[in-house]
Amino acid sequence: MNMYEIIEKKKLDIPLTKEEIYYFVNGYTKDEIKDYQVSALLMAIYFNGLSLEETYYLTEAMINSGDVIDLSKINGIKVDKHSTGGVGDTTTLVVGPLVASCGVPFAKMSGRGLGHTGGTLDKLESIKGFNVELSIEEFIENTNKIKISICGQTGEVTPADKKLYALRDATATVDNLSLISSSILSKKIAVGADALILDVKVGSGAFMKTVEDAEKLSNMMVSLGKKFNRNTMAVITNMNEPLGYAVGNSLEVIEAVNTLSGKGPKDLTELCLSISSKLLLLAGKVTREIDARKLVEENLKNGAALEKFKELVIAQGGDVTYIEDTSKFKISKIKKDIFANKDGYIKSINALEIGEASKNLGAGRETKESQIDLGAGILLNKKIDEYVKSGDLLATIYTEKENIINEISNDVLKSFEIGEKNKDPYKLIIKEIE
Amino acid sequence: MNMYEIIEKKKLDIPLTKEEIYYFVNGYTKDEIKDYQVSALLMAIYFNGLSLEETYYLTEAMINSGDVIDLSKINGIKVDKHSTGGVGDTTTLVVGPLVASCGVPFAKMSGRGLGHTGGTLDKLESIKGFNVELSIEEFIENTNKIKISICGQTGEVTPADKKLYALRDATATVDNLSLISSSILSKKIAVGADALILDVKVGSGAFMKTVEDAEKLSNMMVSLGKKFNRNTMAVITNMNEPLGYAVGNSLEVIEAVNTLSGKGPKDLTELCLSISSKLLLLAGKVTREIDARKLVEENLKNGAALEKFKELVIAQGGDVTYIEDTSKFKISKIKKDIFANKDGYIKSINALEIGEASKNLGAGRETKESQIDLGAGILLNKKIDEYVKSGDLLATIYTEKENIINEISNDVLKSFEIGEKNKDPYKLIIKEIE
Repeated sequence: MNMYEIIEKKKLDIPLTKEEIYYFVNGYTKDEIKDYQVSALLMAIYFNGLSLEETYYLTEAMINSGDVIDLSKINGIKVDKHSTGGVGDTTTLVVGPLVASCGVPFAKMSGRGLGHTGGTLDKLESIKGFNVELSIEEFIENTNKIKISICGQTGEVTPADKKLYALRDATATVDNLSLISSSILSKKIAVGADALILDVKVGSGAFMKTVEDAEKLSNMMVSLGKKFNRNTMAVITNMNEPLGYAVGNSLEVIEAVNTLSGKGPKDLTELCLSISSKLLLLAGKVTREIDARKLVEENLKNGAALEKFKELVIAQGGDVTYIEDTSKFKISKIKKDIFANKDGYIKSINALEIGEASKNLGAGRETKESQIDLGAGILLNKKIDEYVKSGDLLATIYTEKENIINEISNDVLKSFEIGEKNKDPYKLIIKEIE
Repeated sequence: MNMYEIIEKKKLDIPLTKEEIYYFVNGYTKDEIKDYQVSALLMAIYFNGLSLEETYYLTEAMINSGDVIDLSKINGIKVDKHSTGGVGDTTTLVVGPLVASCGVPFAKMSGRGLGHTGGTLDKLESIKGFNVELSIEEFIENTNKIKISICGQTGEVTPADKKLYALRDATATVDNLSLISSSILSKKIAVGADALILDVKVGSGAFMKTVEDAEKLSNMMVSLGKKFNRNTMAVITNMNEPLGYAVGNSLEVIEAVNTLSGKGPKDLTELCLSISSKLLLLAGKVTREIDARKLVEENLKNGAALEKFKELVIAQGGDVTYIEDTSKFKISKIKKDIFANKDGYIKSINALEIGEASKNLGAGRETKESQIDLGAGILLNKKIDEYVKSGDLLATIYTEKENIINEISNDVLKSFEIGEKNKDPYKLIIKEIE
């Protein structure tokens, strides 16, 4: 077996065997196979694809390339959720406490990653004292005690995926369903949840631009999850505007607290209720969706979910008074309001542009080494389908960088499309894939 | 402009601009662009192809990546020939003197390369004293004086092609018509001939396995040559058996001398006459093919071509008595005859296997550093469509390597397919492309 033959086979659209897939994944992880051969293979995969079986072996090989976290000591069916990456997506901070308050263990290990805002870990760190660096033992203990724990990855999880992703990112071979699926699933499975819900974003602010593509990706990931005996489902959700009103780290945590208090934005609340119901079903907590829905709605209303979030903050060393009084969160000093320059209906808010603007304000990382400004970001004041008059407040931006504020203001204004009323109202949850 | 965008464009089948092609060729030549990005691009080119225009710019960029040899001081229309690589292909050593004897300057610069036998330079070096290392001035002077000169490449010609070819060879991206065409043509055009004939081999011993593929490649190269204002044509010739009887360096030079003496194998003689006539036409020496044919046939018969070869040998310091008495050539000491093991017609002689066997006997290079045994090789005794009886001599092998002789004997025997008479007689020249 050699790498040349493996490239040649995939180039000629001949399925690769389990052995061949392990050979290149392991060889590349150990630097025994050259990156220029792997990138040629990745491009051949882009064109000829991988079957579900090949994707399964690729995922398995990536899982086995590094540490696999054993969470079997956590009692019950552990659930996890993953979003393919949206803008203003605070779902995890609401869904986690909500399902945990219903007795379902939510054990989440996150990477930091790049992006428009920081990841879940960065957001939690905007709560003073919150510690995301737990040992596996602490992580397990916390989850057993209060049904929820969120921490950074310990050990070296899926190093093969790390190397492959960096190479794909440099060689225009990111956008292949099998490569995306194996990258996401390998990380999720290596950190051990039993049941998994995938929030596949579609639209201007998402990697998947069409519902058709999002559906293909969802089907692939759900099939793959099931092949690994993980109870998996996917929801395809709209990212043609940011989720909720807040984009930024502190801003999003405040919004999550509001949502857990029953005072959240309608779209974010609805998505959290929906995903949480499904997680209850996947975990076998209830058998009918209607019962699941009732349970989560109740726990949002009666304060149990918010209480659970406070327990999480306390358990991980955070200052719980931040949750009781969100004015304690640090927000960036320089503030600018953005006003509508004409009358009309908001037809769309380009989420990618809002995300980029937010990153430029300081909320996200350009490189792994970038410092995040946890207080920076954008607070929307209007959403799709609302009617505005010229001069109405559209959004407010927060930053410490005075020199870019005018440029970013323009970008944010341009991301709002104002005109005729949309024919169909905005639909958040587009499809569910089981 | 950046390499990521160039890969992405080609991946999406959007034509690359001249600037983009120069950007990646120059960047890669200067080590400013990573090989893993270039190999991804090459694989995208494999799948989506390059238009004639893109191929033209690629060729031009590769020509401009290094030295361009100026042969304008050679009087007349200089001709050159190139073979895509056959087994036992001694054509150059016959065609060169033949067209030169007709007054058409044959100015050939060769690389050494890898292969089943050495290249033209290695073959000439089996003549004692023959010097292939000429300066440009000597090369031009010789060609002006005796109408022929053959030497190694001086300076650094097409370094971009060298780097790209090595990468293609490691990443299964050799077999794309545009990449093959640009690689061949860039080298030919950089060394300056005015008119060019391409001998495109097809069959078991050739890179192109089907006439259809060979035709596509020929069309691409002829169009490309013409776009560079080189009078170019191609002949597609059969490589389902080795050309002539000799495979090896000294063995092939002896066969070339025999052919120049009018006593060569029928197939080799015919191909040399045909290619030489076409070169006379391309050079404008005559206007009708029938006149060209008459001229070359005459010069083969009357000894003028052989005389020209002797002039070449003398001009480049070789011992001309080798040509007068070919028994002076060093032939490897260990000799073994291979006999037919059944009765029947020779249906095919797998030229690739014969070529590999010849290389293993010592006649070719495995790596650039390999020492060639100029006396090693294979002398066929039978060709396609001949009838043999069990025990008849099929071929004789020559080597200095005693330990492998039995294994190679078996390989050579197996390369002969003996059975029913072929329905159609073997056709050497399959097609001409102008």
